[in-house]
Amino acid sequence: MLKSNDDNDKKRKIIYLDYASSASYLSANPGAIHELGVKEKKKLENARAKIAKILNARRDEIIFTSGATESNNLAILGVVNATKEKGFFRSSEKIPRPFKNLSPFPHIVTTNIEHASVLEVYKHLERTKQARVTYVEVESSGIVNPKKIKKALTKDTILVSVMYANNEIGTIQPIGEIAKEIRHWKKGKNRFLEHGYFSAEKFLVLAPSRSQVSKNLFFPFFHTDATQAINYLPINVQKLGVDLMSFNGAKIYGPKGVGALYVKKNTPISKIMFGGDQEKGLRPGTENVIGVANLAHSLEITERIKEKEVKRLSRLRDYFFIRLQEMSKTVFDTPLVISGDLKNRLPNNVNITIPGIPSDLLVIELSGRGIMASAKSACKAGDGKASHVIQAIHPKTSETDGSLRFSLGRETTKKDIDYTIKSLSKILLKLKKWYN
Amino acid sequence: MLKSNDDNDKKRKIIYLDYASSASYLSANPGAIHELGVKEKKKLENARAKIAKILNARRDEIIFTSGATESNNLAILGVVNATKEKGFFRSSEKIPRPFKNLSPFPHIVTTNIEHASVLEVYKHLERTKQARVTYVEVESSGIVNPKKIKKALTKDTILVSVMYANNEIGTIQPIGEIAKEIRHWKKGKNRFLEHGYFSAEKFLVLAPSRSQVSKNLFFPFFHTDATQAINYLPINVQKLGVDLMSFNGAKIYGPKGVGALYVKKNTPISKIMFGGDQEKGLRPGTENVIGVANLAHSLEITERIKEKEVKRLSRLRDYFFIRLQEMSKTVFDTPLVISGDLKNRLPNNVNITIPGIPSDLLVIELSGRGIMASAKSACKAGDGKASHVIQAIHPKTSETDGSLRFSLGRETTKKDIDYTIKSLSKILLKLKKWYN
Repeated sequence: MLKSNDDNDKKRKIIYLDYASSASYLSANPGAIHELGVKEKKKLENARAKIAKILNARRDEIIFTSGATESNNLAILGVVNATKEKGFFRSSEKIPRPFKNLSPFPHIVTTNIEHASVLEVYKHLERTKQARVTYVEVESSGIVNPKKIKKALTKDTILVSVMYANNEIGTIQPIGEIAKEIRHWKKGKNRFLEHGYFSAEKFLVLAPSRSQVSKNLFFPFFHTDATQAINYLPINVQKLGVDLMSFNGAKIYGPKGVGALYVKKNTPISKIMFGGDQEKGLRPGTENVIGVANLAHSLEITERIKEKEVKRLSRLRDYFFIRLQEMSKTVFDTPLVISGDLKNRLPNNVNITIPGIPSDLLVIELSGRGIMASAKSACKAGDGKASHVIQAIHPKTSETDGSLRFSLGRETTKKDIDYTIKSLSKILLKLKKWYN
Repeated sequence: MLKSNDDNDKKRKIIYLDYASSASYLSANPGAIHELGVKEKKKLENARAKIAKILNARRDEIIFTSGATESNNLAILGVVNATKEKGFFRSSEKIPRPFKNLSPFPHIVTTNIEHASVLEVYKHLERTKQARVTYVEVESSGIVNPKKIKKALTKDTILVSVMYANNEIGTIQPIGEIAKEIRHWKKGKNRFLEHGYFSAEKFLVLAPSRSQVSKNLFFPFFHTDATQAINYLPINVQKLGVDLMSFNGAKIYGPKGVGALYVKKNTPISKIMFGGDQEKGLRPGTENVIGVANLAHSLEITERIKEKEVKRLSRLRDYFFIRLQEMSKTVFDTPLVISGDLKNRLPNNVNITIPGIPSDLLVIELSGRGIMASAKSACKAGDGKASHVIQAIHPKTSETDGSLRFSLGRETTKKDIDYTIKSLSKILLKLKKWYN
């Protein structure tokens, strides 16, 4: 027999006989209609409300997932599936004259430096002939030109997906400007509405009023993977002008295995897994309430200290770059290769390429001295392990070059950077003899 | 600057500069090649080894997911996708004479009382014309006849999926016997091999040796959803004879949002989400190491106390049924309707139908008295909320009847049951006047 720890009530007897719904009475199934289930449901909806408030979204626009990979998969596959299900690209459909040359499958516009959980979805869609994808090349700064995104749009484009900040080189994409270009393009090509391509029934399914249709329903929809950005950049979805935004707990000092997807009202999207009708029918499976509550809590903290952390880390990052440049000149007589724009860059990202020395080796040498960094080598292009990001911005990178990423965080101090510089300098002096 | 808490080492200085991989240095990304990443990878593989040992499986046969819903989706969609990708059902393929009447899409055999995370996958496959599904009807006991499963098999059947124990009525399906029937059927219909339907190349892709092909490769493969069974029933996959088995943490006193899928070697299966190559390429996304370690730990405990708990709970369950019957006669003058076989039943499941009184109402009344139970009403067949399980075994259930499920667990005592009986009796006496 259990005692509940309700703060308001006096302790009262609770007999939990719903072990098949959730073996732990401390985290009952939020789908249950009994008292403990209702409590969990409230926690779930409180977490959703907190997150929605921070994003300037509606509560019913937040869908919880198992992480950013699932959020990205749901965003992209979900929109493609919905588009097919709603018949927008059913090739057998009678197409009015102005659209005779409509391709039988949808088109997606993205960049060539997206995360694997986005790029691999496209590869799958291309392989299975479900969509056509245009990969807009970023500039050598690692930043995409919004005009080039606009130029890539076609009448078949259903989705634009551009990551908010890159995970390897930390470059920040001009999401607001891209959204603006898409809006302009839509205005100019008010084609579907004007020509009555959508039937009245389709209007009703997707949007309750004509004004909403004209504002929101138009292809393409705009998705951004904000996983790396969310710690440091503005995430007001209204101001950003995105329709879908992915993020997770693991990158914001929160729980693993918990993610979310913002889905703007009236965005056509279908589930990619099947089962119960949790999360507005978009994501089946008993909700991970503890995880979701932690996600909301982590996001609140991140948001609260964002401004201060951005300032502090930007200073540390710039100091790190200066010290690296100095060290490089001492060791190699040449300036270092820095990957990615130095200004439009996450405050915590430092990414360098040290000519001639494999970065895997550097990570292991650093680790031996207690320093945890990350490598992406460009040397094994054949085995699928190459960094497509580094290759995109340094197309001439030689075979043995790799990139070394240091990503700073809440516990990073100036002392850490000094020690890292000292250690890296020693390592490079040692390895230099072998790699020349 | 951080201090590591390595048990073996003396405390040594750790500088964590991999916040972009995982913001928490206490749970680094197991994909990282630095010291903390390698440590996490070890934890992950230790958890996998523990689980594999308990299931009598190989380590590389355990795939971690976000829960049982995802495991079921991966098992079913994964096998269907792999089958299509390998061209077994490509209708354009030249088919040898004996298979001229091969249907263009695969066939699945299941029962009519599966969980939503299985049934909804079938509905999707049927809707999108990706597969044909036969729903074998269970007997009035809630148990499926293995001979009927065998009878439903066709030359196009690629998958049989039968849940190990039902979540609503707790009935245990004869998984071992079904596996045996499938094996017999395969032996008798050595058709693909005999007629050389599989090309040599396909043999090589799926199985390294001819003997393995004849033993393992044959359709249909056999999946079981063991989510409810795993606390109480034998889970040696070799003895059960299954090729795929789903389970999760939430039902075994473990973590939410963590599940696993056993996939027997040589079972053709493709991923359903796309991204990194974690989990043998079958499940992308940074691994939830803490969650997975908790899952392994929970499974070990469950396994250790299984025998004792089965005995204890079976006794409590039978006592509960006797007390319910007694009470029913006092209140209604009639014996109670019990759903599901009384013998081949999970030791913790009690499911009754109280004629004439909506079970939702009973759950809320019980909750008011501190008792947490579960309802599935059969009264709203139209809105998709009906219990297909109760309808399957009591086809004549009247419109206002519902079923009441009590599921017992580690903290349940005889006193709890006595109190529940007393409370339910009072509730029924009160409600009787209004529902007669």
